[in-house]
Amino acid sequence: MKKLMNRVDDFLSESLAGFATAHDDVITLHSEPVFVRRRQLTQGKVALVSGGGSGHEPLHAGFVGYGMLDAACPGQVFTSPTPDQMVSAAEAADTGAGVLFVVKNYSGDVMNFEMAAEMCDVHNATVLVNDDVAVENSSHTTGRRGVAGTVIVEKVVGSLAETGANLAECKAFGDRVAECTASMGVAFTSCIVPAAGTTTFRLGDDEMEVGVGIHGEPGRRRAKLASADAISSELLETIVADLEPPRGTELLVLVNGLGGTPLGELYLLFNSARQWLERRGLRVARSLIGNVTTSLEMAGASLTLCTLDDEIRRHWDTPVRTPALRWGI
Amino acid sequence: MKKLMNRVDDFLSESLAGFATAHDDVITLHSEPVFVRRRQLTQGKVALVSGGGSGHEPLHAGFVGYGMLDAACPGQVFTSPTPDQMVSAAEAADTGAGVLFVVKNYSGDVMNFEMAAEMCDVHNATVLVNDDVAVENSSHTTGRRGVAGTVIVEKVVGSLAETGANLAECKAFGDRVAECTASMGVAFTSCIVPAAGTTTFRLGDDEMEVGVGIHGEPGRRRAKLASADAISSELLETIVADLEPPRGTELLVLVNGLGGTPLGELYLLFNSARQWLERRGLRVARSLIGNVTTSLEMAGASLTLCTLDDEIRRHWDTPVRTPALRWGI
Repeated sequence: MKKLMNRVDDFLSESLAGFATAHDDVITLHSEPVFVRRRQLTQGKVALVSGGGSGHEPLHAGFVGYGMLDAACPGQVFTSPTPDQMVSAAEAADTGAGVLFVVKNYSGDVMNFEMAAEMCDVHNATVLVNDDVAVENSSHTTGRRGVAGTVIVEKVVGSLAETGANLAECKAFGDRVAECTASMGVAFTSCIVPAAGTTTFRLGDDEMEVGVGIHGEPGRRRAKLASADAISSELLETIVADLEPPRGTELLVLVNGLGGTPLGELYLLFNSARQWLERRGLRVARSLIGNVTTSLEMAGASLTLCTLDDEIRRHWDTPVRTPALRWGI
Repeated sequence: MKKLMNRVDDFLSESLAGFATAHDDVITLHSEPVFVRRRQLTQGKVALVSGGGSGHEPLHAGFVGYGMLDAACPGQVFTSPTPDQMVSAAEAADTGAGVLFVVKNYSGDVMNFEMAAEMCDVHNATVLVNDDVAVENSSHTTGRRGVAGTVIVEKVVGSLAETGANLAECKAFGDRVAECTASMGVAFTSCIVPAAGTTTFRLGDDEMEVGVGIHGEPGRRRAKLASADAISSELLETIVADLEPPRGTELLVLVNGLGGTPLGELYLLFNSARQWLERRGLRVARSLIGNVTTSLEMAGASLTLCTLDDEIRRHWDTPVRTPALRWGI
């Protein structure tokens, strides 16, 4: 295992310490229990709180800041944060309008966020993100997994919350955006969890895992390596079959790197995806290309489509200022 | 070789096509010869033009836009762009105040930019960046290599150019910033050049290359894998011996991922570097952590220090709007 680290047991705390120092204009790091909070809260605004296992950086802590999340709870690598982290984060983020939990659909996360929702002394609601169309159930999940589409939900619901919308409105918008967002990924290599020290799964030199999960969970099939065009076609066929966008639909396309794939390849995959979509009469109106929901050093990428309407497009375009996503401010 | 691509020969053109579509609000892509130009030029502003081999994305094309470059010339992977690309880019970017070429110190780049400087019909000057303190000469270089410090030069000189400074002032500032910027990196794995199809060099499972170049050139020594603290200490000892910053100096610290290393590890390395610097009485006043000058999918990272004064700090903080770096706008 080759990683920039000292002791395995200190991996998360040292990484978070670096993150907190680098971005102390935007966020603060709380310890015991661990959560990251927006430095400046807005009174009376619905607070968005998310969290999940670490190893998916910049998700979620990298999206805490104006226009997105108010707090995020990082668990150990690929391990759900605990209910006490969530309760503390929610209570520290609430300014009177309640808390909206944004939860990726993994059994551990769902259970702990449900427990936190009951325990915490704050009016709250939950948006569940389950955008991964690769498999219906998996080793970590009942129902579809939540993956990179979560970033879109956090961006646009975060924007709505900044306008002063109430908790029910934010929850309804989040549910709607989650429903019109779908993702699927492919892995070329496994990641290595620091505490395990070895690869999560093994792939031959000419193999890829189609529909891989962001923890290295199995996808739909193990296949021979294919061209970018063939990969984008397979992923998009599945995504489009799920979303069923009519011809002429405007899309937000997210090409997400899983951690070990160079930016040049992600742009190439975007080019391939755009051509495929245009051949189907679909329009790429917005795009985001980069590593936003990673799986440690895994090589590979995922494609996410979100069908846009005026409201979603408007909230995608609003200013945002977080460690990982920043524009217009 | 596992890459998101179709035919090797189309790798660069398809990647650039994706890049150009994704960022057509900021840049335009010219073909025959290939260069990327800012969509909107400012009349009478000194134009900054850079370029170099591809495979280091987002460098350089990702830094074309308001506050940084006016144009960039991408060569084939790890291959200098040609003089005709540079001449065309310079002539397309010039609006009357001349062109400043920002050139990383590699023999091919230097020769071609010199030829372009002579051939082109535009008043011009050149800033040479040679921030890599690992080795004095290398397989690709006479003198020190230019690496991630180039991004700092492009940011702050780009900012000065926006104020209406003339070509001589921009050149002098660039030379000064390049002199107070130093870098050194470490690799855990080799990259694979698409046209080669195999790793550039081989490392054992417990080895790292200390002082590696961004094309996989040899560094100072092949060593056993070490902790993040030991690595940051070795890199910073060398960098600080070069810059000789007095106690109390304010620094800009850039932790640059080489392409295959997760963000969480880069933050951990930053944490380690910050502690080392503070023990030496140096102050981390600004930081940037991410993949800004990569070496395809190489795992590893580099550290760059730039000693700040009021002028450099002010120009670091100004708004920027490029595909890869964006704030305040």
